[in-house]
Amino acid sequence: MRVPASSANLGPGFDHLGLALAQYTTITVTAGAAGAATVSGLDAHLLASAPNLVESAMQRLAEEAHKRLPPHTLHVENGIPVARGMGGSAAAVVGGLLAANALLDEPFDRLSDDVDDPLLAIAAAIEGHADNVAAAIYGGIVAADGGIAFSLSDGSDLRAVLFVPETTLHTTAARAALPPEVPHRDAVMNVGHVALLVAALIDREYDALSRFMRDRLHEPYRAALIPWLEPLIGASERAGAYGACLSGAGPCVLALAAPAQAKKVAAAMRETASERGYAGNVLVLAIDDTGATVTEG
Amino acid sequence: MRVPASSANLGPGFDHLGLALAQYTTITVTAGAAGAATVSGLDAHLLASAPNLVESAMQRLAEEAHKRLPPHTLHVENGIPVARGMGGSAAAVVGGLLAANALLDEPFDRLSDDVDDPLLAIAAAIEGHADNVAAAIYGGIVAADGGIAFSLSDGSDLRAVLFVPETTLHTTAARAALPPEVPHRDAVMNVGHVALLVAALIDREYDALSRFMRDRLHEPYRAALIPWLEPLIGASERAGAYGACLSGAGPCVLALAAPAQAKKVAAAMRETASERGYAGNVLVLAIDDTGATVTEG
Repeated sequence: MRVPASSANLGPGFDHLGLALAQYTTITVTAGAAGAATVSGLDAHLLASAPNLVESAMQRLAEEAHKRLPPHTLHVENGIPVARGMGGSAAAVVGGLLAANALLDEPFDRLSDDVDDPLLAIAAAIEGHADNVAAAIYGGIVAADGGIAFSLSDGSDLRAVLFVPETTLHTTAARAALPPEVPHRDAVMNVGHVALLVAALIDREYDALSRFMRDRLHEPYRAALIPWLEPLIGASERAGAYGACLSGAGPCVLALAAPAQAKKVAAAMRETASERGYAGNVLVLAIDDTGATVTEG
Repeated sequence: MRVPASSANLGPGFDHLGLALAQYTTITVTAGAAGAATVSGLDAHLLASAPNLVESAMQRLAEEAHKRLPPHTLHVENGIPVARGMGGSAAAVVGGLLAANALLDEPFDRLSDDVDDPLLAIAAAIEGHADNVAAAIYGGIVAADGGIAFSLSDGSDLRAVLFVPETTLHTTAARAALPPEVPHRDAVMNVGHVALLVAALIDREYDALSRFMRDRLHEPYRAALIPWLEPLIGASERAGAYGACLSGAGPCVLALAAPAQAKKVAAAMRETASERGYAGNVLVLAIDDTGATVTEG
């Protein structure tokens, strides 16, 4: 199973808009003997729990299918920075579900988007929100809720420029920063921004994006934990990005840019982070438009 | 100026999603002599202030254009039920702006959607929200914010079924029912619903609509003022409507249905209203796809 990284909470689309990034984790499941799981690759020292995530997704799928998994051994070759808001846990969940589905002779069809997809519904239930897992399953830029997803764009004429800080932030800590209530006008602003952002993405009206990327449901509350958020959004937009936002629950910052502008945006983000003393890397990634793939061998 | 009725706050799209209805108000402006404004047509007895709305929109446009209006006389032939959530005031504002623009030799271009339209921006500033005025200007189903609007659909394969109660409700009273804060989870639900509703409308995936039509930013608070809201939404959906919601700030209820289902949906809404003693009419209207038209003669 090769599963892409993903960025959720795209702009005002908290818990519902995501995109897939062309950087991958590969999960290998060998049937036949039950062995100890192994992990290699990026941030492997932080990934002690990754095989558990994959394994519990596999078990969950087997339960939903009323079947039992055969003995197997897992290997995770990680390519997704861990606990940065790049969809590492979603990739583990999606990889586990697809692995179990393959091992059990596909009790669930893997359907295209725009329809009810049982694998998406299970993945969203495990993750608690559908945007990362829908992006990881289908690729491209998606709007998703429960078991339904719409593809908004293949993202082929966009690049994702990400500031990946050295610091990690776990989603549970980032969730705890959210308030129980928000001003009605903030909710209305997000509703308007997300409506126009979705239409702009489908119409590829990227010049309008920056007006609709701002969020008031999580970014203002998380900015205290992530001091580089505002400076890097500002730097990316001044360098010509279409718009920028927190990636997932952070701490990564995601900017969307035209392919020809991406290097300039990356340089501006790198420079601002360096000037202000925020340690991290800047990545320029294509949007993955394939989604998770399964290869049997 | 012939201007369509409109329904704002479509489902979860509070202040930002609207559609135009094939029922019209005609505003006639005669240049040359300043005379008293006259009103005729539907609900004319409730329309004492309509010429003022038209006139102040005309003055506002003249100010924005740094010009003076010539002497003129207004006549409003009303075709839009008044104070029911069907965009009567938006039609007056749009009619006034287009009338003044015509009288002053078009200081503002009337642009297509997907772009910044100065007339839309002025209309939205007067109304306080862009969804009714964008629908009235462009027709079809629109997402709008300030001076920008995206056309989501021409609505040609949909019918609007409206319960128009005898009771009126003014938008200011309906606004007063809204709370200053809402639960974070309600804001997130609306964000998700509006994202998927916009995608579903653009893709014409109408069977998915009912899942994304529910709102938690105004309907729950206004339902106390509008006891027929929930029973009529339920009746319309059981009769095969794709989805239903409050029309604008109410008190009308709007259901969207396939053309072949519209009569059945209308009958179900009429029957439920009658059984429960809610006086009013049920209308079946096409979606207007032309928007406001100006005829000079």
